[in-house]
Amino acid sequence: MSEFSHLISEKNFKQLRQWFHENGTLEIVEELTRSDPEQRAIAFRLIPKARAIDVFEMLDPSVQQQILNILREPRVREILEELEPDDRARLLDEMPPLLAKKLLEGLSFKERRLTSLLLGYPENSVGRIMSPEFVDLEINMTSNEAIARVRSSGRGVEAIYSLPVIDQNHKFIGTIDLGDLVLADCNITTEKLLTEEAYSVKADESQEKASRLLLDLGLIALPVVDSEEKLAGVLTFDDAMEVLQESDTEDYLRTGASEPLREPYLTASMLRLTKTRAVWLLVLALAATLTVNVLNLFQSTLESVLTLSLFIPLLIGIGGNIGSQSATIIIRAMALGEIRFGDTGAVLFREIRVGALLGLVLGIMGFIFVSIVFGINMAIILSLSLFSIAVLAAFAGSLLPMTAKKIGIDPAVVSAPIISTLVDASGLIIYFLIAKMVLSI
Amino acid sequence: MSEFSHLISEKNFKQLRQWFHENGTLEIVEELTRSDPEQRAIAFRLIPKARAIDVFEMLDPSVQQQILNILREPRVREILEELEPDDRARLLDEMPPLLAKKLLEGLSFKERRLTSLLLGYPENSVGRIMSPEFVDLEINMTSNEAIARVRSSGRGVEAIYSLPVIDQNHKFIGTIDLGDLVLADCNITTEKLLTEEAYSVKADESQEKASRLLLDLGLIALPVVDSEEKLAGVLTFDDAMEVLQESDTEDYLRTGASEPLREPYLTASMLRLTKTRAVWLLVLALAATLTVNVLNLFQSTLESVLTLSLFIPLLIGIGGNIGSQSATIIIRAMALGEIRFGDTGAVLFREIRVGALLGLVLGIMGFIFVSIVFGINMAIILSLSLFSIAVLAAFAGSLLPMTAKKIGIDPAVVSAPIISTLVDASGLIIYFLIAKMVLSI
Repeated sequence: MSEFSHLISEKNFKQLRQWFHENGTLEIVEELTRSDPEQRAIAFRLIPKARAIDVFEMLDPSVQQQILNILREPRVREILEELEPDDRARLLDEMPPLLAKKLLEGLSFKERRLTSLLLGYPENSVGRIMSPEFVDLEINMTSNEAIARVRSSGRGVEAIYSLPVIDQNHKFIGTIDLGDLVLADCNITTEKLLTEEAYSVKADESQEKASRLLLDLGLIALPVVDSEEKLAGVLTFDDAMEVLQESDTEDYLRTGASEPLREPYLTASMLRLTKTRAVWLLVLALAATLTVNVLNLFQSTLESVLTLSLFIPLLIGIGGNIGSQSATIIIRAMALGEIRFGDTGAVLFREIRVGALLGLVLGIMGFIFVSIVFGINMAIILSLSLFSIAVLAAFAGSLLPMTAKKIGIDPAVVSAPIISTLVDASGLIIYFLIAKMVLSI
Repeated sequence: MSEFSHLISEKNFKQLRQWFHENGTLEIVEELTRSDPEQRAIAFRLIPKARAIDVFEMLDPSVQQQILNILREPRVREILEELEPDDRARLLDEMPPLLAKKLLEGLSFKERRLTSLLLGYPENSVGRIMSPEFVDLEINMTSNEAIARVRSSGRGVEAIYSLPVIDQNHKFIGTIDLGDLVLADCNITTEKLLTEEAYSVKADESQEKASRLLLDLGLIALPVVDSEEKLAGVLTFDDAMEVLQESDTEDYLRTGASEPLREPYLTASMLRLTKTRAVWLLVLALAATLTVNVLNLFQSTLESVLTLSLFIPLLIGIGGNIGSQSATIIIRAMALGEIRFGDTGAVLFREIRVGALLGLVLGIMGFIFVSIVFGINMAIILSLSLFSIAVLAAFAGSLLPMTAKKIGIDPAVVSAPIISTLVDASGLIIYFLIAKMVLSI
């Protein structure tokens, strides 16, 4: 039990205040994240005000939510007022609409305008998470004038390291790195300082796409423009990183047959922990009943040769694994933008060949072992089944995610678990058909 | 087929040169990444030199490698010379040691020194990927002097937005954001401009830990210090993002029972695609033979009640899914730093309860359906098995990854596939023991 949780459980507030002074924001955030809602509420009130906002900004939105719920309204207003517009928008997004509206109205005009601007963009669009405050330069400025502009209007602006440049019609034409500006000679025109290439995204672009672009380009900030190429805001690297981490978590958990928790594991409620998995599980259980029916079909075959039952778990297990391999590799490659729709053919061809190769290896090994223990017939049946199931699994494992993406479903939804369950049933059919052929029953 | 691959396959170099002029670095990088090594080599030579280095920097290390292999040595030297020291170190890291040594010697003294410095740190340590070039300020400077220092020695320095500050003994004491410096009044001392908290990492810290810290703090750069708290370099946000994306890919693919490709999917060789999966598959196949033995043990039971065979795939399928759920959720929570060793007890307790809850739901549903079709006895057997397997799976799925981490193995290695395979065997034992009890055979 950490010193913090010790102090809090003992309600030793004096010591606790001390602890907050002695520890860094990060430590405070960690401890708050790990303590349960009530304790969190008490603790947060004891944080020195100057510190409180930094701590709050670093907390998980779900945790921020819980804290606001128990703070008194004036304090809530204070906090919201001090948050960056994009953080504030994200937070209001998660609140009950009525409460959000009420709090929004409580904000100063400037902050309210900035926030409503963000909330005006569609969900999951980069417009929602961009910083609406930026310092823009004009194309015909000298570096001195530019610096002056930054100094006059840069205070409190989050995205100041990458400065968007606009032309006479206020259209975005490129960016200047603050670094280059600082290093530049006094009277170079801004035009000469523009970065080689001008990248920007439309405000309704998906957050993930925009963040991926920012990462691929290694940019500190990516300008966001509206339909008329006018500047709407700036996507900053830290928000982009958050987005990518979240989408990775989502893909990862779905591949593990559960929905993302969207809050820290240790403080998530039992109900929530169960709900995020239950739906997946029931769907998979339903799909798994297919296997019962298949086996029912082949009862007579099983009856006559019970030995066949021995290899059922092994076969479907291996099939499932090969299917998962293909699915995860393809889904990740799509997420990283390594493969696109156009590549479907090439991908399937590759996966089928890989499946065949793996099936060949497993088939041969299987044949050797099984022929020794269970005789030649079983060996033939098993190796043939292994090979066909391997090919089938690799094929299904690559086809389904790509089709899903094409029709606009998150590929991760039809990943490992679904695929193995489907391969289970079809694998059994293959197995028994081969068995009937070989044993001519 | 894209215009690029069309031009290249037609060896239409004139048009290709044109294409390079008309398209952005990102497009060029994408097309190069997707074309096969020979074509890539030809194409790269046609890129205007000014452009070539930007393109090269954005390519995947494995692709950079292949390109260098076919370029003539003077050109290779040129490219290496222009790369950032950390990119260069990563590249040399992947080369055959002899070649790397040869190329390193070819570099100018300054660049060679910087690179060897990086290569001096242990693998996967943040020292390997930090930028060894930085502009450090002294604690007693005025903001004007600081700006002057930046302007005099900031040229060509990658990490210029977060300026480390040192004291009289050259020890790191904090950082100043370039933004704050630009906005500051002329004669404030640097001391007043220090960011509230001074974060830094040791050069031998793991790349993943350091990058995670940078992300959690939302920093542009994180100072890296040696054992005496003296500045060694700076970890920049873009390198940190790369590291986290790579480790996410690794976890993700391992959860899908394959090793990371470490090169773009479409251009990876068949052999490589197969190798990254074969080892996993053979291990899992070996583990799966356990199920054969288990079933062998209970042949007599199966013989007397063949109906039992119907539910084998369903039971182990569901067990596997619950195991995967626990494993993926726990592994991700560990990766995000949400849970630590100390939490093992709490985590296991939570997972067991979740497993029990899920088992209860499945058990009841199973009971209803099965009792209708297969009678009360089978219903009892199945629901009891479902419940016990659910609890077992959730327990194993959380215990194994946490133990793995504790003994220093990547938890993702003992994730979904391994766990489901183990749960398969133990699940069957439970199933048959319950069956023997209920049917008293």
